[in-house]
Amino acid sequence: MRDEIEIIERIRARAGPDKQLEDRVVAGIGDDAAVIATQAGTDLIACCDLMVEGVHFRREWAPPRLIGRKALASTLSDIAAMGGIARFTMTSVALPAGLPDGFVEDLFDGILELAAASGVALVGGDTSRSTDSIFIDVSLIGECQMGRAIRRNGAQPGEAIYVTGYLGASALGLKLLEAGFRLNGEGCNDSTSLGALRRQAVLKHLVPQPRLEAGRALGEGSLAGSMIDLSDGLSTDLSHILDESAVGATIQEGALPVAECVRALAVNDNTIDPPGLALNGGEDYELLFTASRESERALADIARKTGIPLTRIGEITSERGLRMERDGEVQPVQPAGYRHTI
Amino acid sequence: MRDEIEIIERIRARAGPDKQLEDRVVAGIGDDAAVIATQAGTDLIACCDLMVEGVHFRREWAPPRLIGRKALASTLSDIAAMGGIARFTMTSVALPAGLPDGFVEDLFDGILELAAASGVALVGGDTSRSTDSIFIDVSLIGECQMGRAIRRNGAQPGEAIYVTGYLGASALGLKLLEAGFRLNGEGCNDSTSLGALRRQAVLKHLVPQPRLEAGRALGEGSLAGSMIDLSDGLSTDLSHILDESAVGATIQEGALPVAECVRALAVNDNTIDPPGLALNGGEDYELLFTASRESERALADIARKTGIPLTRIGEITSERGLRMERDGEVQPVQPAGYRHTI
Repeated sequence: MRDEIEIIERIRARAGPDKQLEDRVVAGIGDDAAVIATQAGTDLIACCDLMVEGVHFRREWAPPRLIGRKALASTLSDIAAMGGIARFTMTSVALPAGLPDGFVEDLFDGILELAAASGVALVGGDTSRSTDSIFIDVSLIGECQMGRAIRRNGAQPGEAIYVTGYLGASALGLKLLEAGFRLNGEGCNDSTSLGALRRQAVLKHLVPQPRLEAGRALGEGSLAGSMIDLSDGLSTDLSHILDESAVGATIQEGALPVAECVRALAVNDNTIDPPGLALNGGEDYELLFTASRESERALADIARKTGIPLTRIGEITSERGLRMERDGEVQPVQPAGYRHTI
Repeated sequence: MRDEIEIIERIRARAGPDKQLEDRVVAGIGDDAAVIATQAGTDLIACCDLMVEGVHFRREWAPPRLIGRKALASTLSDIAAMGGIARFTMTSVALPAGLPDGFVEDLFDGILELAAASGVALVGGDTSRSTDSIFIDVSLIGECQMGRAIRRNGAQPGEAIYVTGYLGASALGLKLLEAGFRLNGEGCNDSTSLGALRRQAVLKHLVPQPRLEAGRALGEGSLAGSMIDLSDGLSTDLSHILDESAVGATIQEGALPVAECVRALAVNDNTIDPPGLALNGGEDYELLFTASRESERALADIARKTGIPLTRIGEITSERGLRMERDGEVQPVQPAGYRHTI
């Protein structure tokens, strides 16, 4: 049994005052609540994301550092998807008895490392015992210039649809983990090219990279009509934009930027369906957004500056529904990404 | 298995745009994150509070409406303890399979009812399955006038120590629940005076009343040097103020405002220790604060306006440590409230 106050004191000591934000954090960890100075001319962007052992992750799949890191990463991705700047996090964790020594510290190391790298200060949270599983709820408060948040409901017919990065590797990584492959285990860590490819897919699942820089640039430049992050799978997440914006879309299968490791591993394994993984696989944590033709040059600049490719995959239409063009034929697509059930 | 999107849509429909706050909630539930307009001249106050089944509550002790209500109430109490105004909440819940029909709706009814009564808008959250227990993490964003937050570290020697309301009933209610008494069961609901007293204690545990109005008045009037809410028990919570402020305190046992139901039930039950429950019992969710003599008249005004008594229970000293005066003798007191372990 570990003492909550002792754990909070250790986290507090390591959370430290972030240089960039210390003027704004009037009170951080250790009071009833954090006190944060507001900034004129900004809107707040607030969200939270829950990660539950046995539902979102398994303890044997990743060291605690990566579990903590991913909990923050998935929440950061929501701030990126609003075109915002992530600023402050509160993290609540519930932990069962019997965790190995150092588990809690490593979990928070993962959170604090990514927080520091993302310019985010840990300002609060709560800890508790749990009877069974690990629960991590990460709340984030971000900001954007007043009126610049990019919502799901702003897509307009005629806008092009873009995604950042490459798709499908995270879902394949999850399949590999479920099949027994481990990050540092056999088949993922050998010197063969197959091992390296599997490792790439598993890493994409366990260590997602939220697209903070690209999201912020799209927000600051008012370059996107609508935006969402790809957490449940492109077909499902794009459908959220279509529903909220009361529009439709046609995407080109051939344009989907399938991750290289997915294509390469599919060559010798016909159970791997690259376009299917790109369309319906979850947790890529890339950004999907819509933008008018006038944004094209600015988008190319963002891609060059961030080093993250932006790929045009289709177009928003006034006709409702989601359709995909393949070999010149257009077929309706049903959202088939991850569907959360309770 | 319930569909997360369906649940979110129902909550979204009921969360509605709060009349008072609708101009400020640019985007609420249903986007990647909430977007909130900031207000010039204010500081943000942010906190979260985790409630875990089997640790903080048991399903058989209270209907889901009261479980949801309490999760929000305990978090509101933290905002009150900063002298702030509660504004926006995000609520994450993880729920096991097999809950009775309507459980989720009732849980959120409890949250939404108290939110509405407290002027708070539900702007986001996350839902998930859990493998075993119910988890509720409530995040709150409040505000106060710039620089007016009341922290734990501002207690000064010579200040008087006050508490709102009455103490000890919640801890006694918890004991009664653990002993098998139920809110609407035998021994809590009969027409005897004993039944009514037990019910009062159990209600105090299950339906705490966060002192938002008093907290806000103390903050707006800059009337308190330091403040904390009583969640772990007075001896422990006061010690947090003493540690953070690098001061000590002497309290008078006879001055502790023991709840009437605690005193009355102790008459026929010598296992009930009224001063002990007032000193070390947790979850009263009253406010403990320190204030100078000059605040006395303003404090009396607040007590009159809110209808909540403010009782002077002791004094801050430059000599460190916590002491209690009983029958003219002064003895050191060890913090003996609830100590969280993980």
